[in-house]
Amino acid sequence: MEAGQQQSNFSHLDSSGRAQMVDVGQKAVQRRFASASCKVRCLPPTLAALRSASMPKGDVLTVAKIAGIQAAKRTDSLIPLCHQIPLSVVKLEITLADEGIEIVCGVATEAKTGVEMEALVGASVAALTVYDMCKAVDKTMVISDLRVVEKTKQ
Amino acid sequence: MEAGQQQSNFSHLDSSGRAQMVDVGQKAVQRRFASASCKVRCLPPTLAALRSASMPKGDVLTVAKIAGIQAAKRTDSLIPLCHQIPLSVVKLEITLADEGIEIVCGVATEAKTGVEMEALVGASVAALTVYDMCKAVDKTMVISDLRVVEKTKQ
Amino acid sequence: MEAGQQQSNFSHLDSSGRAQMVDVGQKAVQRRFASASCKVRCLPPTLAALRSASMPKGDVLTVAKIAGIQAAKRTDSLIPLCHQIPLSVVKLEITLADEGIEIVCGVATEAKTGVEMEALVGASVAALTVYDMCKAVDKTMVISDLRVVEKTKQ
Amino acid sequence: MEAGQQQSNFSHLDSSGRAQMVDVGQKAVQRRFASASCKVRCLPPTLAALRSASMPKGDVLTVAKIAGIQAAKRTDSLIPLCHQIPLSVVKLEITLADEGIEIVCGVATEAKTGVEMEALVGASVAALTVYDMCKAVDKTMVISDLRVVEKTKQ
Amino acid sequence: MEAGQQQSNFSHLDSSGRAQMVDVGQKAVQRRFASASCKVRCLPPTLAALRSASMPKGDVLTVAKIAGIQAAKRTDSLIPLCHQIPLSVVKLEITLADEGIEIVCGVATEAKTGVEMEALVGASVAALTVYDMCKAVDKTMVISDLRVVEKTKQ
Amino acid sequence: MEAGQQQSNFSHLDSSGRAQMVDVGQKAVQRRFASASCKVRCLPPTLAALRSASMPKGDVLTVAKIAGIQAAKRTDSLIPLCHQIPLSVVKLEITLADEGIEIVCGVATEAKTGVEMEALVGASVAALTVYDMCKAVDKTMVISDLRVVEKTKQ
Repeated sequence: MEAGQQQSNFSHLDSSGRAQMVDVGQKAVQRRFASASCKVRCLPPTLAALRSASMPKGDVLTVAKIAGIQAAKRTDSLIPLCHQIPLSVVKLEITLADEGIEIVCGVATEAKTGVEMEALVGASVAALTVYDMCKAVDKTMVISDLRVVEKTKQ
Repeated sequence: MEAGQQQSNFSHLDSSGRAQMVDVGQKAVQRRFASASCKVRCLPPTLAALRSASMPKGDVLTVAKIAGIQAAKRTDSLIPLCHQIPLSVVKLEITLADEGIEIVCGVATEAKTGVEMEALVGASVAALTVYDMCKAVDKTMVISDLRVVEKTKQ
Repeated sequence: MEAGQQQSNFSHLDSSGRAQMVDVGQKAVQRRFASASCKVRCLPPTLAALRSASMPKGDVLTVAKIAGIQAAKRTDSLIPLCHQIPLSVVKLEITLADEGIEIVCGVATEAKTGVEMEALVGASVAALTVYDMCKAVDKTMVISDLRVVEKTKQ
Repeated sequence: MEAGQQQSNFSHLDSSGRAQMVDVGQKAVQRRFASASCKVRCLPPTLAALRSASMPKGDVLTVAKIAGIQAAKRTDSLIPLCHQIPLSVVKLEITLADEGIEIVCGVATEAKTGVEMEALVGASVAALTVYDMCKAVDKTMVISDLRVVEKTKQ
Repeated sequence: MEAGQQQSNFSHLDSSGRAQMVDVGQKAVQRRFASASCKVRCLPPTLAALRSASMPKGDVLTVAKIAGIQAAKRTDSLIPLCHQIPLSVVKLEITLADEGIEIVCGVATEAKTGVEMEALVGASVAALTVYDMCKAVDKTMVISDLRVVEKTKQ
Repeated sequence: MEAGQQQSNFSHLDSSGRAQMVDVGQKAVQRRFASASCKVRCLPPTLAALRSASMPKGDVLTVAKIAGIQAAKRTDSLIPLCHQIPLSVVKLEITLADEGIEIVCGVATEAKTGVEMEALVGASVAALTVYDMCKAVDKTMVISDLRVVEKTKQ
């Protein structure tokens, strides 16, 4: 595949390479779902503290979840060429795993275009919120492996 | 270090483990700088197309840069416990490297608290915007290695 | 009724008591209406001044009305688990009564979920705006009786 | 006191009764604090459920707290004539009392104008969020007694 | 035509002259399109510099385009009585003409009300962004001739 | 003057022509003021209706004024490379002149950079709001002559 040929496949670039929004007007309103995941790698004591904190109180994970939900709803104001999409639900699951915090964000809509950017934004902002709340105790955190897990429509 | 002891170091949790905002009122107004970086790993043809597109036109990287700058300025509305900080400058560098796109976001302020979250948000939203603009040609992208590179005050 | 049993009725809490957004994807798009009301109790001279001001000029009440309309449209960014709902109309009525200012906010939509939160937000922010504009002359104001008046769907 | 005379005391109205923003340019930067409180009156079973839920999990109150903090930071976009004020801290206390939920919001800044509107907005949006999360189990809730508790400067 | 009679035609004023939002609930969802245009008049050297800059790099025009797209999507938060409308596409064309920069913004939606305000906002904010980026080299710029070019529905 | 030389004067472009934010960190906090003006040209009956409406009620002009004030405070989120600036006051004057509506927006701050963009945004959004409220009775309106009138610092 040649770069020159592929370039025309960038739906967000017009034929002269300029940024453009895609017209979704003719697309069908369908149930669309996407999920994305990422990890916050941190030191073992940070995880231990979160585990201890999360049992009776859980505020770190709840705040992160709320931040992720709110950001997913604001995706079109963060990512310039995204459309305004009314989300039917944003679901965030935050798990304390062995090597860090795992975040999965699932988003559904009935709309004319897909919601993988909304899922990525939700996961990403939840991870950044975890980072913010733990940064006083851990300067080594890294957010990684942010990717789309699933994208479907019916 | 014991989890129970460390927990009191979470500046965003009060003594009963509840989320709280830190009072920065007594802190000094100082020049504060932070930078953060991340990578968007993608397929070689995607990079080639970006390289080709970026020479005369550059819209993908410019749109990503603008999105990152605007998001850094909105950090306090994305990350719930962050303060409103007037940024002196947000600088985004986006480079096409061998294995993907490298993003560095530097942020400076004269304020009472640091700006590493602003740098992380700027890098993160720039990466998400690159993802959005390339997702039509590459379903394999992963955003990784989002971390703070430097944090200083004078 | 036992607390334990009732808890499962909180649609915004999952089975383990964690906050969640409700999935409205399967609900029908219907005309939905809700209205909410509240009062701003104030001193008689404040009311007299407002009455005098409101006859030829009316700026206090107009500003409050505009603030209420704009806030109702932003409900989903203020109340974390609310959905983005395109409102067909927001109507605010602000009346100078004997014991204070009475505010009624009516909101209609054609959507998958109801709009009582939008009506409450509209009435609430209109009341806060009245408060802001009168606070220089009256330190005793209290906003009270904020409640849903009506909620219907067709 | 006569209405006509008092009218000129409305700092948000000019001499012809038109809405205006107050120029705070000449005012001193001072530590300024304000707190506001309100109540969400609800049915006893709702309170019992919240009490039960709040012991191990607490998500309702945490979500309300986060919403209040975020809204307080956005006060100037909700209340048209308010200034943009960088808040040093927003503190929300939400208590389950005998007759309902009591909310106190304290706000501090180092700025040229006071923050009572920020405190009122924070308390108000926290109350609305409690309402939103409990409305599936209690249609009788009323938000009342929203007032400024304290306003000081140093 | 008499002023008094015409006044009732202001759809944004009720029968007593008060501002109101129009209820679009009964209107049909239709494909609606509108375009608007404006000019940024500037000095010849400014145009020459933009022309030179725009050939290989084009950042001024790209930034303006992105700003216009993002603002068009936020129209309902800028113009108080506008409805929230999900836009199918926002298209901005910015041309360097002999006497200045010409901007055309086209907007399409499938919704219950038209989008000429969205087109006007998009063109206007793109022009303001051009102004911002050129103001260091040209203090004489004027934005003019902002008007609706076309408004259609199917 | 040659285009190539002038290009380096674009403070919003770096040496390779890429968009950048200016670092205002080293600039002095000063009282800074700017004003901008524009016109909404319309048909005589529209003006007559506004005049009639504006005497006792004035809602059109009040709504436009509020919209302009709110937009001026949001300038940095509309114009990508603008800084967040806390405004001391935004003052809007809207006059019904012979050939249309004249709008002047004055903005003051104590900050490290000037506020002409804020004044331009305030005037522009006030004009757009007048347009929105009159568009049902006048399809011929044009917004023109948007320019900076004065820019000073002390």
